[in-house]
Amino acid sequence: MPYQQITLEILAAFKAIVGDANVIANHDDLERYSHDETEDLRYYPEVVTKPNMPQQVAELLKLCNINSIPVTPRGAGTGLSGGALPIMGGLVISMERFNQIINIDEANLQATVEPGVVTETFMNAVAEKGLLYPVDPASKGSCFIGGNVSHGSGGPRVVKYGTIREYVLNLEVVLPNGEIIWTGANTLKYASGYNLTQLFIGSEGTLGIVTKIVTKLIPAPTIDALLMASFATNETACAAVSAIFRAGIIPSALEFMERRGVEWVIEHDGINFTLQNGIEAFLLIEVDGTNQDVIFDACEKINAVLEAYNCKDVLFADTAAQKDELWKLRRIMGVSVKSNSVYKEEDTVVPRAALPQLIKGIKEIGLKYGFESVCYGHAGDGNLHVNIIKGEMSDADWHHKLKDGIREIFELTIKLGGTLSGEHGIGLVQKEFMPLKYSELHLNLMRGIKAVFDPNGIMNPGKIF
Amino acid sequence: MPYQQITLEILAAFKAIVGDANVIANHDDLERYSHDETEDLRYYPEVVTKPNMPQQVAELLKLCNINSIPVTPRGAGTGLSGGALPIMGGLVISMERFNQIINIDEANLQATVEPGVVTETFMNAVAEKGLLYPVDPASKGSCFIGGNVSHGSGGPRVVKYGTIREYVLNLEVVLPNGEIIWTGANTLKYASGYNLTQLFIGSEGTLGIVTKIVTKLIPAPTIDALLMASFATNETACAAVSAIFRAGIIPSALEFMERRGVEWVIEHDGINFTLQNGIEAFLLIEVDGTNQDVIFDACEKINAVLEAYNCKDVLFADTAAQKDELWKLRRIMGVSVKSNSVYKEEDTVVPRAALPQLIKGIKEIGLKYGFESVCYGHAGDGNLHVNIIKGEMSDADWHHKLKDGIREIFELTIKLGGTLSGEHGIGLVQKEFMPLKYSELHLNLMRGIKAVFDPNGIMNPGKIF
Repeated sequence: MPYQQITLEILAAFKAIVGDANVIANHDDLERYSHDETEDLRYYPEVVTKPNMPQQVAELLKLCNINSIPVTPRGAGTGLSGGALPIMGGLVISMERFNQIINIDEANLQATVEPGVVTETFMNAVAEKGLLYPVDPASKGSCFIGGNVSHGSGGPRVVKYGTIREYVLNLEVVLPNGEIIWTGANTLKYASGYNLTQLFIGSEGTLGIVTKIVTKLIPAPTIDALLMASFATNETACAAVSAIFRAGIIPSALEFMERRGVEWVIEHDGINFTLQNGIEAFLLIEVDGTNQDVIFDACEKINAVLEAYNCKDVLFADTAAQKDELWKLRRIMGVSVKSNSVYKEEDTVVPRAALPQLIKGIKEIGLKYGFESVCYGHAGDGNLHVNIIKGEMSDADWHHKLKDGIREIFELTIKLGGTLSGEHGIGLVQKEFMPLKYSELHLNLMRGIKAVFDPNGIMNPGKIF
Repeated sequence: MPYQQITLEILAAFKAIVGDANVIANHDDLERYSHDETEDLRYYPEVVTKPNMPQQVAELLKLCNINSIPVTPRGAGTGLSGGALPIMGGLVISMERFNQIINIDEANLQATVEPGVVTETFMNAVAEKGLLYPVDPASKGSCFIGGNVSHGSGGPRVVKYGTIREYVLNLEVVLPNGEIIWTGANTLKYASGYNLTQLFIGSEGTLGIVTKIVTKLIPAPTIDALLMASFATNETACAAVSAIFRAGIIPSALEFMERRGVEWVIEHDGINFTLQNGIEAFLLIEVDGTNQDVIFDACEKINAVLEAYNCKDVLFADTAAQKDELWKLRRIMGVSVKSNSVYKEEDTVVPRAALPQLIKGIKEIGLKYGFESVCYGHAGDGNLHVNIIKGEMSDADWHHKLKDGIREIFELTIKLGGTLSGEHGIGLVQKEFMPLKYSELHLNLMRGIKAVFDPNGIMNPGKIF
């Protein structure tokens, strides 16, 4: 179905629904909504609206559905796969005014929150009550929890506490036809027909718009320990990862960082950290809990594994300040690498014991195609972010030849039992690689599901498949 | 589309696919496949086949799809909602010969297993390697892991370790058209399009047939403690449940048992347990871990909560034998109650702090409609199994009036923020109550998804919606 442009009449209707102040239609003000954190892509919407009630979202969608106007839902715009880019123009519905924590239910250890709440704001609010919401993407200080739901986002603590799929219990969503439903129930278990809650998680705004999120909470751990281990090679660092789990430890974070990434952060962000010669890779390992002896015991066991894997040095963070510094090193790595070079970020995930083969293969592919890469990520989950740096590469190679190299990275990922994305989503920029992982039959099942919810195809068109 | 009967020609084709020895077509031998553990319902299939390879399942489904023959997949037949009942006749595909543990991957802490493996057999196999697969329904000694996946089954340890949704990483499934796909990847994270793995979990054999299951495993805890607390009323027992979590404890099991259930087990199964006067309800509470001090500390904190909630007595299990005896009491309660009376079992789930209201309401509804109920279940998850006992109820009331009482129980469950089933599924017997929870629009979304996978409607027709 061909999409229609937004007429003055429809613009007036948008204004009637959300109020004049919450409609943006001039080019300069639309700029902010023309990009997310994905490379340097720009797509302008025709109009942006900022509703703050589900009923307003319902009216907007109903109007767009009848008039075949493409709709792109937008969270904080921190996505790394182009999910929020309005590539067909049309309407962007910004969820920034859905910013209320509606309820923290201490009796049930649940919270109800609007999708435009900043993830860290929500984490801090539950932490004040001694509770933990552990899904903490690196961008937690700026991303919205609604975006996390839509992309199946993760973070360091997922390795112990589970993915966002384990914390989202129920969703209020507005369907393209303007109907509002709750996808499930506010219960820890659910065996009552197809699980639409799980279907919406990771659906990247292609099925409807999430307007409320009910999450599970858990009692917060009270103490933790953090150590940083350095290795002579990427492969030995990665090989130690699965050995730590096999020793009976489930760390609350197990992050991998390449030397080049650490250098970049030190150079550009003035982090206080001394890099020794002969070190190529680091593991940042956190254990948490409620008992100091258990933490010590876990650290000893981890130390024994690290020694067995030829770890060169282990730095224990002695103070809270030192922990913050090490975590900062890891957390800002993505931004630091990206702010200092033209880049492309790929999100790979494999069974964790395949990590050494993955990183070895990525470097070989880089040599073959002439690109430098900086890898880091959630090694405990087998989830490695690959930042490809333009560096000396010619514009022609960057825009054309590189694609084949990225394709080879994904082919390797899939050959190792992995998939295209662990937590960033497919969005716009990984879409062309989907056939590497999925047959046409499989993609048609996804398209079929999409058509059930969105028969006119107005929701975030051109994404995923 | 009207269903067709199985002709002699098609029967011969079934035999050619799986071999004569794996086809059953005579009435006496079909009896075993005419019922599951759901009440006293009987539906005979025309034919049963027992394939043991995905390709055989594919050929069977292709043949049935072309000829409009209804297909009911069957695990161990321990289901409690009638999911395995071939209510339209046709073909039952029994998965009993898919009984191999294909691989326990210690490097990745994953296993690949066929759906016809008995859950406990699988749990024991991974336990031998120091690992834990924690999804342990009460029927773990006889149910199949494939049935657990299809019904979203749980068990006591879900409260700490998470539901089956958190352990199933990837599924090999045969679609009704005979195509074989893997739903996802063998990875701990997955943000690569709609999550078909999660869609198949709990889909009750209505979308296709699962032929391989890849599960996550975790390091096993090494020690545990078990205590049984007795209360003067159901409500005080239930009220203590959420207070335990609020005290910062996540028990590895938190089970509720009504006095009547315990009496039944003692009377009929000769369990060695002394029931004191004035006790109406029990909580069975387990904590596990790797450190004795942490376990002691948790027990002390639990004890303090129990005292605050007027617990009458706390029995600590001192020996492994005593633990086994207490667990047996809980585990056989369902079978014991059911084997001694005509019954109907309902599976309710609410946010856990609503348990006191739920159980109070169930008893009031029982008084109103004249039925006795025995309640027990996974209180830590807010998941209560309600066994309705025929007792003195007339046949007429049992077959007609009771339905209104059950309806009221579900209305109450939903009013309290819960849903129809936490872990038994909807199957046949809860289907009529689905409109209490879901709008027609919501049910049509489910039907639409069904039609994407199974356009001819051959897979387990008449179930869920």
